[in-house]
Amino acid sequence: MTDFRIGIAGLGTVGAATVDILQTESRLLAARCGRPVVIAGVSARDRSRDRGVILSSIPWYNDPVALAEAPDIDLVVELMGGSEGAALDTVKTALSAGRSVVTANKALIARHGTMLARLAESHGACLNYEAAVAGAIPVIKTLREGLAANRLDSLYGILNGTCNYILSTMRRTGRDFADVLAEAQALGYAEADPTFDIEGIDSAHKLAILASVAFGCEVDFQGIHVEGISRVTAEDLRYGEEMGYRIKLLGIARCDDGMITQRVHPCLVPITAPIAGVEGALNAVVIGSDRAGTTFLEGAGAGGKPTASAVVADILDLARGNRLPTFGTASDRLAPPSTVAMDDHVGAYYIGLTVRDEPGVIADVTAIFRDHAVSLESMLQRGRDPGAPVEVILITHETREASMNAAIALVRALGSMLAPPRVIRIEAL
Amino acid sequence: MTDFRIGIAGLGTVGAATVDILQTESRLLAARCGRPVVIAGVSARDRSRDRGVILSSIPWYNDPVALAEAPDIDLVVELMGGSEGAALDTVKTALSAGRSVVTANKALIARHGTMLARLAESHGACLNYEAAVAGAIPVIKTLREGLAANRLDSLYGILNGTCNYILSTMRRTGRDFADVLAEAQALGYAEADPTFDIEGIDSAHKLAILASVAFGCEVDFQGIHVEGISRVTAEDLRYGEEMGYRIKLLGIARCDDGMITQRVHPCLVPITAPIAGVEGALNAVVIGSDRAGTTFLEGAGAGGKPTASAVVADILDLARGNRLPTFGTASDRLAPPSTVAMDDHVGAYYIGLTVRDEPGVIADVTAIFRDHAVSLESMLQRGRDPGAPVEVILITHETREASMNAAIALVRALGSMLAPPRVIRIEAL
Repeated sequence: MTDFRIGIAGLGTVGAATVDILQTESRLLAARCGRPVVIAGVSARDRSRDRGVILSSIPWYNDPVALAEAPDIDLVVELMGGSEGAALDTVKTALSAGRSVVTANKALIARHGTMLARLAESHGACLNYEAAVAGAIPVIKTLREGLAANRLDSLYGILNGTCNYILSTMRRTGRDFADVLAEAQALGYAEADPTFDIEGIDSAHKLAILASVAFGCEVDFQGIHVEGISRVTAEDLRYGEEMGYRIKLLGIARCDDGMITQRVHPCLVPITAPIAGVEGALNAVVIGSDRAGTTFLEGAGAGGKPTASAVVADILDLARGNRLPTFGTASDRLAPPSTVAMDDHVGAYYIGLTVRDEPGVIADVTAIFRDHAVSLESMLQRGRDPGAPVEVILITHETREASMNAAIALVRALGSMLAPPRVIRIEAL
Repeated sequence: MTDFRIGIAGLGTVGAATVDILQTESRLLAARCGRPVVIAGVSARDRSRDRGVILSSIPWYNDPVALAEAPDIDLVVELMGGSEGAALDTVKTALSAGRSVVTANKALIARHGTMLARLAESHGACLNYEAAVAGAIPVIKTLREGLAANRLDSLYGILNGTCNYILSTMRRTGRDFADVLAEAQALGYAEADPTFDIEGIDSAHKLAILASVAFGCEVDFQGIHVEGISRVTAEDLRYGEEMGYRIKLLGIARCDDGMITQRVHPCLVPITAPIAGVEGALNAVVIGSDRAGTTFLEGAGAGGKPTASAVVADILDLARGNRLPTFGTASDRLAPPSTVAMDDHVGAYYIGLTVRDEPGVIADVTAIFRDHAVSLESMLQRGRDPGAPVEVILITHETREASMNAAIALVRALGSMLAPPRVIRIEAL
């Protein structure tokens, strides 16, 4: 068969790892997809940088859009990142020319996925993005193909390795968030500007994509309720553990009678739940479906090689001629966004209070909860130190989020509160 | 696009569930694969049986081979089971006619996979068998497609839900193997003749298939070392737990410099290993690769609906035109069998001894191990009851299987042994 000619735009860690696999394993990959995969062009900002791979024989493009338009390219691989600018222009140009695209760009798909799916479809092109979610774990393939005989009703996962590494390390060592984050940055596990990771935005990008494929709806990043992990304390992790829970940053999506819930926030999950055992920088996704039941996938969620593994898998699929609708179904059949308001969330809550140890504090707090019909399951106050700060931990029964928020606003205003209450949702899973 | 016309041979639990999905979800499935999937023929032994699905409008074939030859069929779905006879004849007939086949038949693929892959390839047909291994878990898809950018070096898994259910229940309740097996049979979780399951043959069928796809070698069912779970005792589970291990029936395959190890036997695995947490009838597979690292998949391994979920996923792949070599690479490139002898296995061992409590027994046993250079890590004897049977548990350091077998033969012959020694390999994982 004829060569499959690809252009790679973006030669950072993932781009270089992708080039490396394609060059090192060219014979193996050709045997697996039935034809040689040839790098027919590359583009990046800085041509002189040493990337540890040999690029001298590959045509160089200063402009990725020009690469996307090059007549001798079958497929464009976008690995520049960023939801706007060059990445968006390159992908739009390629798809408009009827040329398929493989990308690892979660922000791009989360923000422009529906538009890009329509563009791809109207020009007979494919858009593959396995590497955009959960790195090497074939979760998009599992949703679009492996579970295609099912109606999916729920999914949740650990979608950001940086947050999971930080939470795992805080729990293991008892150290503070800021301390562990600084170390993660020094080790290169966290970005210099960690906002996207620790505030849950990266997880939300990935969740928006997963929800679209799982439920056949338009990508709705804006509809996601997002909270990060920066206010989780070492005490919360310790008390949670004592009560049989582990704290994880989860992305959770549900589809109930066509209404979609999407949320990213720290959760207390039972220590016995498989997701609780996913530690360090690993990612995991749990998928609920009507016929296959519960499917659990765990693996390397980030890093050059694991991400490139998913990029190359997407390339091989297209080299073989495996063509799928972007989100698993024709784009004109994707359901419009229909988000359930977070106020209507019903669940149990963990509440961490830092209060001055004085008579009447607990009575004040519990009176507020009673007045808002929030029922308490348990209360824990370790140690006594009259007049000094102490930690009080409350666990509620199931209650509506709106009631919880109203109660917490009053609790927060109590004179005995020494810090804002920390409210973490408990997920039964 | 034109209809995709399939013939289904075999209407047992999985066949009926497959028909049900195709009928109930016809619109959804057509949207997902881009064309209507039509059941154009069915075949089974007994036409009169009520299977809970409407078959009256579908052409009936008494002979599945005639269905495989019918000119208006695009794809044959073989769900009869059994590695010889009608199933083999039907699949060979379809492939010889250049017609693709989807099957859930692990025995067939394990025993004839290499021949069938060659037959499919020489006639331009595809052979898909996702449902043959680990039910609804898309493990074949993960190996053939999701991890196609990797060289795989190891995989292991819980591949038989019946055995895992029995071991989980024995551990949880402290009951005996025979007792739990009888209950599983009464509940329909185990077959009337449970030999294939409990003696590890079913797991070995699946392992042979996984190893072939993972390592690109010919299917070598005969090369697998197989031991079942029928000699595992409730005491072994209890002592194992006390020492930090859980007992699982694992299928394990490794590829070291082209040499393949394949074995199915009960293993002690660390309680902290993710595979230890896979309980009840669930299946799980752990895949080790050079770029994606470790990938862990868990889900429903059996039952009508989960198995049919995988069958229909295979059908949709072929309806879309997604064509793959049977074992992920062209059949003339599959490496010939190259099994490592079990005598060369190196690992730690758990040894359960039922001995008469009398002076000198431990000294006799430990002398034998010393003479065979088997080093003991720990020894446990709970309770003392002079003259009566007591349990002695030994854990060895890493040793060669040949040395262990030689030592055990002598231990077994000691006059104080009241039952054959129970030797279970410990897997570090």
